[in-house]
Amino acid sequence: MPVLCEPAVAVPENILTMGETLELAQRLHRDHPALPLALRLISNTGVVKRHIVRPIDETLKHPGFETRNHIYAEEARARVPDVVHRALRNAEMSPVDIDMIVYLSCTGFMMPSLTAWLINKLGFRPETRQLPIAQLGCAAGGAGINRAFDFCTAHPGSNALIVACEFCSLCYQPTDVEIGNLLSNGLFGDAVAAAVVRASGGTGMRLERTGSYLIPNTEQWISYAVKATGFHFQLDRRVPKTMEPLAPVLRDLAEENGWNASLLDFYVVHAGGPRILDDLSRFLDVAPNEFRHSRATLTEYGNIASAVVLDALRRIFTEGTVPNGGCGILAGFGPGITAEMSVGRWQTDPLTVKRADRVGERA
Amino acid sequence: MPVLCEPAVAVPENILTMGETLELAQRLHRDHPALPLALRLISNTGVVKRHIVRPIDETLKHPGFETRNHIYAEEARARVPDVVHRALRNAEMSPVDIDMIVYLSCTGFMMPSLTAWLINKLGFRPETRQLPIAQLGCAAGGAGINRAFDFCTAHPGSNALIVACEFCSLCYQPTDVEIGNLLSNGLFGDAVAAAVVRASGGTGMRLERTGSYLIPNTEQWISYAVKATGFHFQLDRRVPKTMEPLAPVLRDLAEENGWNASLLDFYVVHAGGPRILDDLSRFLDVAPNEFRHSRATLTEYGNIASAVVLDALRRIFTEGTVPNGGCGILAGFGPGITAEMSVGRWQTDPLTVKRADRVGERA
Repeated sequence: MPVLCEPAVAVPENILTMGETLELAQRLHRDHPALPLALRLISNTGVVKRHIVRPIDETLKHPGFETRNHIYAEEARARVPDVVHRALRNAEMSPVDIDMIVYLSCTGFMMPSLTAWLINKLGFRPETRQLPIAQLGCAAGGAGINRAFDFCTAHPGSNALIVACEFCSLCYQPTDVEIGNLLSNGLFGDAVAAAVVRASGGTGMRLERTGSYLIPNTEQWISYAVKATGFHFQLDRRVPKTMEPLAPVLRDLAEENGWNASLLDFYVVHAGGPRILDDLSRFLDVAPNEFRHSRATLTEYGNIASAVVLDALRRIFTEGTVPNGGCGILAGFGPGITAEMSVGRWQTDPLTVKRADRVGERA
Repeated sequence: MPVLCEPAVAVPENILTMGETLELAQRLHRDHPALPLALRLISNTGVVKRHIVRPIDETLKHPGFETRNHIYAEEARARVPDVVHRALRNAEMSPVDIDMIVYLSCTGFMMPSLTAWLINKLGFRPETRQLPIAQLGCAAGGAGINRAFDFCTAHPGSNALIVACEFCSLCYQPTDVEIGNLLSNGLFGDAVAAAVVRASGGTGMRLERTGSYLIPNTEQWISYAVKATGFHFQLDRRVPKTMEPLAPVLRDLAEENGWNASLLDFYVVHAGGPRILDDLSRFLDVAPNEFRHSRATLTEYGNIASAVVLDALRRIFTEGTVPNGGCGILAGFGPGITAEMSVGRWQTDPLTVKRADRVGERA
């Protein structure tokens, strides 16, 4: 069964703190009637800091969609290779071992997608399948893993590389001043993440079952307006309440695997915002601390879209407390409203452990 | 093994003939130094007519990216349901039988993708997986089939619906006057197509093996420049010559299945332009007539991007001469330069035939 290995994550060097975000909101929207509400909503996100690809002064100016998209491509080429190399090392693989690249990004648009450039520049084989996904937003984190699962299951012995490249700061729209926009401006951050789904072996989450769910008639709740100025993010105020209909779906998926979703060993969930985590903890009857990895991503990086689940999973690896055979669930949430979920057991490769020990001995 | 069933295709009611296209080019680019070359290239496409979603006078005016994208969404919602219903009927399926929708389109951008709307409006289950692909251009026709193959193989008993919605006329850019643009303006057409990949059974192409190939270092040959005015198609003059490196790849894929690519019973290839078909026929040592279905698509509809392979396959069903067990190949070509290919045997479901006869008797 395919194994989702340790992700590699990188965040840009430009840091924006909560304090700076609140100051900016106050300065830019001084006369906005809902400013106090916006400030309260931003404070409630708990996002202590975010990382953005360009300095904040530059980010606040909109240089036009064309320039923005050039910056996106340039920054992607500069930042993706390192996380790809690290993700490959984490899985003890080389580019030639990879049979599919799943590229997730809703914050810039390229055709061909970055997959073609990656294959040409990083030594992947020309036969590598390319699967770029641009329209699933934050849910793409879960969907990318699930499509890699499909591919690796359909083609035994094949490995897939997942890359999530989200530069949400490049979708900042100064003219959008709905309350949902003001909140988003204080919530989203930039990051690049990658992880290998191995055909088998290795240490990580052995993917056993996947699922998807669209909450009926919620298409308009998270969406892009596509304009001459680029992608304009639109967030409905009902979105934070979507865990009530989604918790039973997660529960069902766990149950299909014979598990109780309240009693799992690890949880990797999309940290769309604090309410998502609070509600899911409540509706799944899981202690808030079980979502500490997702919450740490949110606190330290903000909502980094499709990269959240990979970063939360990385933190689980770093903590290193999930036992071999431990049961877990992973879920991305995004436009649709769509949930893309998977369940699986933690697998500790004894060989990997031994090799790591050897490296430790040498050091 | 998954079976690609009979596609349903629809083209819009507004027709643009070769004569009208040439007249337009002469009128709009009267002083263009390369006008004679452009006219010759357009004549050589052999595209007798194309169908476009809006009347030509409206198409020639650029109303801005935002309006264009609204038109895209509106036309997609108006035109996709009918082909979906017909594709389902062709496969003897209902919306509830479908487990994944693969949505292919590089000529408009929506988030969420049309998949969410389709699920809500046409009675698909909320659990239906959504796979929107926007960045593989014309190669998406082959890629969509291959990802449906992955899904159906990984989840035995599951069925996938593929939808290709390409309104190339909505990417017309009046200010682009490179020779590649003038040619493209005379080459591309609009169409909507859909087909079901059944878990098993039914009549159609039983998918046995899939493959992908990126011609190294050709990323820039087919691409979009993303601007405030939308997607700007960029075509390198070397593209028509890409069948020389791709023919051996097709040959290898057939050989892996134990077949000689020169001696197959049916060919479904992307009709990017006439040179693609001529060269492939030469390099694969296949009589030009074997590509008659792809050529008919090109002649009657123009290059309809990811929908070409589905339309060419539809024509094979209509002709009805492929024997049960006949061997065939399907290939989409697009940006990257990427080829997405599959090989499989024709399968005639005796039950389907009997049912069709019964319908005939009744009529």
